[in-house]
Amino acid sequence: MTAPRAFHALNPATGEALPTPVPVTSPEALAAAVNAAARAARPFARLPGARRAAFLTAAADQITALTDELVARAMEETALTEPRLRGEAARTAQQLRLFADLAREGSWVDARLDRPDPRRTPPKPDVRSLRVPLGPVAVFGASNFPLAFSVAGGDTAAALAAGCPVIVKAHPAHPATSAVAARALQAAAAATAMPEGTFTVVYDDGHDVGLALVRHPHIRAVGFTGSRAGGQALLAAAQARPVPIPVFAEMSSVNPLILSERAVQAGGAPLVAGLTASITGSGGQLCTQPGLLFVPDGAAGDALLLDLARALQAAPACTLLSGGIHEAYAGGTAALAAHPEVKTLQHAAGEGRGVHAALYAAPLAALTSAPDLAQEVFGPVSLAIRYGSLAALTGALQALEGQLTATLHARPEELPAWQPVLEVLSSKAGRVILNGFPTGVEVGHAMVHGGPFPATSDGASTSVGTRAAERFTRLFAYQDHPDALLPPELQNANPLKLWRLVDGQRTQEPLTPEVTA
Amino acid sequence: MTAPRAFHALNPATGEALPTPVPVTSPEALAAAVNAAARAARPFARLPGARRAAFLTAAADQITALTDELVARAMEETALTEPRLRGEAARTAQQLRLFADLAREGSWVDARLDRPDPRRTPPKPDVRSLRVPLGPVAVFGASNFPLAFSVAGGDTAAALAAGCPVIVKAHPAHPATSAVAARALQAAAAATAMPEGTFTVVYDDGHDVGLALVRHPHIRAVGFTGSRAGGQALLAAAQARPVPIPVFAEMSSVNPLILSERAVQAGGAPLVAGLTASITGSGGQLCTQPGLLFVPDGAAGDALLLDLARALQAAPACTLLSGGIHEAYAGGTAALAAHPEVKTLQHAAGEGRGVHAALYAAPLAALTSAPDLAQEVFGPVSLAIRYGSLAALTGALQALEGQLTATLHARPEELPAWQPVLEVLSSKAGRVILNGFPTGVEVGHAMVHGGPFPATSDGASTSVGTRAAERFTRLFAYQDHPDALLPPELQNANPLKLWRLVDGQRTQEPLTPEVTA
Repeated sequence: MTAPRAFHALNPATGEALPTPVPVTSPEALAAAVNAAARAARPFARLPGARRAAFLTAAADQITALTDELVARAMEETALTEPRLRGEAARTAQQLRLFADLAREGSWVDARLDRPDPRRTPPKPDVRSLRVPLGPVAVFGASNFPLAFSVAGGDTAAALAAGCPVIVKAHPAHPATSAVAARALQAAAAATAMPEGTFTVVYDDGHDVGLALVRHPHIRAVGFTGSRAGGQALLAAAQARPVPIPVFAEMSSVNPLILSERAVQAGGAPLVAGLTASITGSGGQLCTQPGLLFVPDGAAGDALLLDLARALQAAPACTLLSGGIHEAYAGGTAALAAHPEVKTLQHAAGEGRGVHAALYAAPLAALTSAPDLAQEVFGPVSLAIRYGSLAALTGALQALEGQLTATLHARPEELPAWQPVLEVLSSKAGRVILNGFPTGVEVGHAMVHGGPFPATSDGASTSVGTRAAERFTRLFAYQDHPDALLPPELQNANPLKLWRLVDGQRTQEPLTPEVTA
Repeated sequence: MTAPRAFHALNPATGEALPTPVPVTSPEALAAAVNAAARAARPFARLPGARRAAFLTAAADQITALTDELVARAMEETALTEPRLRGEAARTAQQLRLFADLAREGSWVDARLDRPDPRRTPPKPDVRSLRVPLGPVAVFGASNFPLAFSVAGGDTAAALAAGCPVIVKAHPAHPATSAVAARALQAAAAATAMPEGTFTVVYDDGHDVGLALVRHPHIRAVGFTGSRAGGQALLAAAQARPVPIPVFAEMSSVNPLILSERAVQAGGAPLVAGLTASITGSGGQLCTQPGLLFVPDGAAGDALLLDLARALQAAPACTLLSGGIHEAYAGGTAALAAHPEVKTLQHAAGEGRGVHAALYAAPLAALTSAPDLAQEVFGPVSLAIRYGSLAALTGALQALEGQLTATLHARPEELPAWQPVLEVLSSKAGRVILNGFPTGVEVGHAMVHGGPFPATSDGASTSVGTRAAERFTRLFAYQDHPDALLPPELQNANPLKLWRLVDGQRTQEPLTPEVTA
């Protein structure tokens, strides 16, 4: 047996290899992990929600306890700043706790009971149904969220809350961070006596391990946050399987942000500061970064862009997440700068591996003739599209692809006239923000972080917020089962005090014996 | 301009063309229908649920009023019996009323409100979300449900309740029936002032119109019930679009029904009668027809199969839905009869176009060596697999593909020992029935008519029951919108009295001003 191949993550600030070698997961180890996950699937699914909640809570505690180490490794591997990473660690723990609450409370399974009627012709059966976990889920770590959307991140928390074992393919840019987070989850799994194989992390600096995972017959769903090309490759692999599986891929979004002329006039310094923060936050590497601004023609718009360019120039240079992202940013901004109809307002070049934020402008007509201008350039860059009439703006927005978010800044008195713009934005995006900024995705029950293709591969779903657990389930019905054979969620006594739908009525009450006799 | 090409449906009992020519929808007419549906999408989506409920209720009334005509046309076109078709017409109307109730009550949109906290750092935004309709839906009529799963059927009712315009591709075997149902829905749409283009039916005896529909950029989802080959062709077309769309295809299921030895011993005449009705009902052409029986080795099983063969022989011959289905049935049963390990217990051949029910038997080992024996043969045919040990049975069940249903007949005292079998069945099917029969799918809130691939293309969903509306929606969030700009479902006052999730708590209460101030 030969020693496993190993790789080294690179320090994005220096381009140099970090000292710790990371062994590539062997085909044998991968098969063992997936088989263990498949064996864990049924016992893990059958655990009470409170037990899964204990696991997720222990995981949150472990993430909190290991924050210093997580942040130190992630700073080396991603060049994200310490405050950002401390915030992300807190968010990761909070997210695990939110899903723990969901699993503990339990009503999210959408338990439904339709009572029988033996006197009807034909007799009406007893039908009870709920969401059940799909089985082992493959989660791909994201480059831009080494903690909150990687090993212990949102997809992992959602899948575990739903009752699915998880195998994470660590992102190759931050394997040491991933290993610390893996330790946190494995310690939590051991401390709360989860079935062996409930949670594993695998490593590869290429595509083999990830593709093998997606193609493995025991894997039942995939969660992915990354590039459009990466997401589409996983989708194609999943659809080509003898038994296709769902891929929840979050891929690409430029998050259009539209400013009315009055909003620009009234915006002043707070508007410039808000835009600057949203464009440059985390090195502009957030999924909801506003890459496309719609700014009115005329003096007020000119002045705003002048102020914004100055503010972006004054913002500190940042190091992007990886050499590949640096190169893509350099190429994408160079292409924008070279476009005959695009004017450079603020230049992107920095010294060495540092980059400055960039701002470009183009007339609306340029977007119509070159729709590729609306493609995402990942990093701290925005393209301002200058528009004249509301009608022309509305037409241009209609040509946009699907987006995670869209944002409108307009004064309250203008909103009736801007209703058609809001309607177009609603048809394009998963979330529409009024007079705010799309970055800073709130983790809660109502959040929708999804959107029509190509923002995601499944615009019906969300990857942030408690609804994310539902994507890792299917519906299942029991017909004419005795009470003792039903899971507690569907038993007459409603021992878990769930909100259920009984004959179409929402209730927390038990079923009384005479009704079901 | 040339006259449109026309086709004639065939009378399955005689093979002769029915008199009324059916014009194939021209590409121009198809484009006009889809464009009208796209224009209707926003106004239809914005109608109050009560207005959509009025439309669906009027449609139900129309179906009831036109039942005689629907049944007459369907008898000619499908050879299904009058009692079956009268029952199906009643079920179609009931289904429309159930979805009317869903739309009127409104809570199914899963409205969620997470309240803001402006004092938090950073400020917590106001996020409110709900399910919104996807846009125009293409529905393919099913051959085996000319009323309840065709023009005015389940997918149509679910999509309209969800707020999606519908274009139905009528099944080529029953165009005259489809035209009557189309009149019913169009009359209802006109009487309730639905937007022009909300509902259209198109016709073709080939695949061009259907494929053009699935490929049209304005179509946002597809509902289909039919063959595995047909469903997979639509899936491939939908996935190859520049913007892929979901296809909810119900394709293929043999609905395994397992009998324990004690259940056989205790079953007697009622068991034989129940099996006979479930195997032969509607000519064996129900999606949940039990095509695969697992019968214990030994004398009790032998006796049951002898009785069942006699009962099937005594059952009246039936005419299958179409010449194509007749040929497939003849071919499928001939292949079973010719299989070296399969024994014919009751023969399929009938006179002319009539067919008798057929029953075959094979040892468990044959299924292991020839898994294709478990492929669906559409029509009144079942293959009995004779099993010895519970362990061998469990292993064979593990090898089955995904199913709509699975059924176990066992005595109450046996159930603990049969738990592993129930667990395997649960992992394979969308619905598990205990001591009953899978046919006769109850339309209600808890029903799940779905299942893992290839039973359906999306095992997370259901095509029967009120949850079917959810498949035609996506999630959408409003961030920091003033109350007046929100849809009623998300307004503070909760004017529709919906059950909503407010900060994670289920409630019908309004939001009080001080909370949101």
